Amino acid sequence: VSGPRRAAVLSIGSELLLGDLTDTNATWISDRLRSRGVAVVHHLAVRDDVEEIVDALRWLAERSELVVVGGGLGPTSDDLTRDAIAAALGVELVFHEDLEEAIVARFAAMSRPMAPRNRRQAFAPEGAVTCPPVGTAPAFAVDLPASHGPVRVVALPGVPWELHRFWDAFVDPQLDELGVVGTTVTRVVHIGGRGESDIAGVVEPLVDDLPEVTLAFLAKQYGVQVRLSASGIDRADAMRRSQPAVDAVVAALGPAVSGLDGDDLEVTVVRLLAARGERVATGESATAGSIAARLGRVPGASEVLVGGLVAYRTEAKTSLAGIDADLVARHGAVSAATSEALARAARERSGADWGIGVTGVAGPGTVDGLPVGTAFWALAHPDGTCEVHERVLPGDRPAIVLRLGSAALDLLRRRLSGDAG
Amino acid sequence: VSGPRRAAVLSIGSELLLGDLTDTNATWISDRLRSRGVAVVHHLAVRDDVEEIVDALRWLAERSELVVVGGGLGPTSDDLTRDAIAAALGVELVFHEDLEEAIVARFAAMSRPMAPRNRRQAFAPEGAVTCPPVGTAPAFAVDLPASHGPVRVVALPGVPWELHRFWDAFVDPQLDELGVVGTTVTRVVHIGGRGESDIAGVVEPLVDDLPEVTLAFLAKQYGVQVRLSASGIDRADAMRRSQPAVDAVVAALGPAVSGLDGDDLEVTVVRLLAARGERVATGESATAGSIAARLGRVPGASEVLVGGLVAYRTEAKTSLAGIDADLVARHGAVSAATSEALARAARERSGADWGIGVTGVAGPGTVDGLPVGTAFWALAHPDGTCEVHERVLPGDRPAIVLRLGSAALDLLRRRLSGDAG
Repeated sequence: VSGPRRAAVLSIGSELLLGDLTDTNATWISDRLRSRGVAVVHHLAVRDDVEEIVDALRWLAERSELVVVGGGLGPTSDDLTRDAIAAALGVELVFHEDLEEAIVARFAAMSRPMAPRNRRQAFAPEGAVTCPPVGTAPAFAVDLPASHGPVRVVALPGVPWELHRFWDAFVDPQLDELGVVGTTVTRVVHIGGRGESDIAGVVEPLVDDLPEVTLAFLAKQYGVQVRLSASGIDRADAMRRSQPAVDAVVAALGPAVSGLDGDDLEVTVVRLLAARGERVATGESATAGSIAARLGRVPGASEVLVGGLVAYRTEAKTSLAGIDADLVARHGAVSAATSEALARAARERSGADWGIGVTGVAGPGTVDGLPVGTAFWALAHPDGTCEVHERVLPGDRPAIVLRLGSAALDLLRRRLSGDAG
Repeated sequence: VSGPRRAAVLSIGSELLLGDLTDTNATWISDRLRSRGVAVVHHLAVRDDVEEIVDALRWLAERSELVVVGGGLGPTSDDLTRDAIAAALGVELVFHEDLEEAIVARFAAMSRPMAPRNRRQAFAPEGAVTCPPVGTAPAFAVDLPASHGPVRVVALPGVPWELHRFWDAFVDPQLDELGVVGTTVTRVVHIGGRGESDIAGVVEPLVDDLPEVTLAFLAKQYGVQVRLSASGIDRADAMRRSQPAVDAVVAALGPAVSGLDGDDLEVTVVRLLAARGERVATGESATAGSIAARLGRVPGASEVLVGGLVAYRTEAKTSLAGIDADLVARHGAVSAATSEALARAARERSGADWGIGVTGVAGPGTVDGLPVGTAFWALAHPDGTCEVHERVLPGDRPAIVLRLGSAALDLLRRRLSGDAG
């Protein structure tokens, strides 16, 4: 047996379709299945309605060998996953005394009596394999006939922490039993300062020569992720098979590579500064402290981030950052000169090695006749020089703030990596 | 015509099925469709594969009158939404010269040439109505025949801010044209500083008396949202029907109400300060500038946020914030005294009316033997007095930073609202 190769996630719950809740379970389940080498080909979310659940289940079963169902196992009248799976199988629900005892015990552990309606949760479709609750909802699994053969349907509660615990205790052992072997890894190369189509032009020919590796691109607010997936008999094997593609992409894109795998731009900047024993401070206008805050999110940031001056209103450029008011008046609050002065002030007043300075027009209104998106970012170097860059950035207010911060951080990253520009 | 009553969201992108990205677009689209009284009955996500997209589209079309497709409109070889919709219709892709010109203009606005591959984005299925790009991807709409009649298929880029802009410019007008009438509104009362079950105990009896209103709770990292939904023939009617519930909840929870609807804590603080003609500055250690950045995200923040001092490392508390080094050494970098000194320094040096000061241990390591989560937040008042609060906050590093910032902002909000504490 080689086990299921294709799987689906079926999420049950009207709150998902109403837009009140985002389906993070589908993401989590997909990641776990991918790590076992099982490709998830559909995420489907449906309302709390027996007919709609049955219809969805049958459609998915024709297209997969495994369907993971999340949600609809609670005690209330709109928890219909048990009923729907029994209907799809054409069987009755059967009462499990051992499950009722386990539910009563769960309530007792919380010093609460079991409400009568929780008895619903001790029922499962005839023929199901059941698993006692980790919260108050048991889980179960059945085989649903499809035209290509039996499809394993595993029903788990929708509460994320309960679902996660059942995965280890109930789902992973079933995957073993079904004969799943092998693992897929996805390596991520983070790219800053180059467009997706530009990157694709470089990367696609490289990966065309590596048939074991699947290529995908993911555009982020700033930068692009090049995603390289490979499968192997285990994680080490899959890592080995993906490595030539990672090496080729990194070599071809050189200084545009802002990080690998979990190391995003901020982590990379903190790591590069720490490796050199150097520190940075920020002088921020349009970004309002968010550049410092982004670095501060990285564990260990206190080794490399001294602090910052948030000079948001014009008067703060003098009162907090100590910049000559005449300079700001002469060149404008949003200007190359003011960005440079902020970078220099941050560096010199804090004693940091590097200083970042930014000004811009985040919108919604224009400033001094400059259009929304106007952005200047400056970097004061350890040798006392300072460079300034400018661009009109696209997007709305939060996107402009994010992109301006990323542009400044990416400039520092390039200089720390030895890219002289 | 009464317009479509049932809709589906089809999200395209292998990254969703790989577990790399959570489908927040489906949530956002569902919320917008609900507000127009259109019920979303399916969310379906599929990989970048023409056959799988066509299969999914046909299945959804048999079950809805409107299908909103998100993603797969980029310039790379795995952007296949155009091809798949053309295949489902049995038509060719047609080149649109006006779209190419619009794409070239978008690149020109960013001072970049259009890469040859972006020309792909100027193609749309024969017969489609197109809409020029807000990023670089145009959107389009077609009618797909189904057994119950034509189904409107609207294809939008997957980048959230682009999708949101197309909604107003391209999708909402189509809903009008299709005869959609009626609206459901969900009013949100934001609550700070009280637990969900505590709030439910107050709110549930109030809403039980109002059968037109549906109640839901949503716990956030800091605070709880009370969500009150009502339907009407139009938005004004739905607002009128929901208003008694909103008024009752606000009256019952009083100073714990941190905002209404789109006015979250940050917006409320900016609005309250603007109404009084007062300003604030921050002195931040553990939050690393994120309190200033959160206020800076609110349009109009430049009227009320002067700026801030990010004193992240201990030496910055003296070099950047001008605090007496002896005071920090005596009381500790994380202490009530240092938080108060930061609040006072921010207020006095910037000339703001109010000063916020925070110190804390965000983790992962302890500081001076203080446990992770230790937090002090101070508020310097216009009259020269200063109050300091402390608590050990739960959660991991990002949760502690968020909660500490929210605690400080909520303190300012309460004082601006006349809650003397």
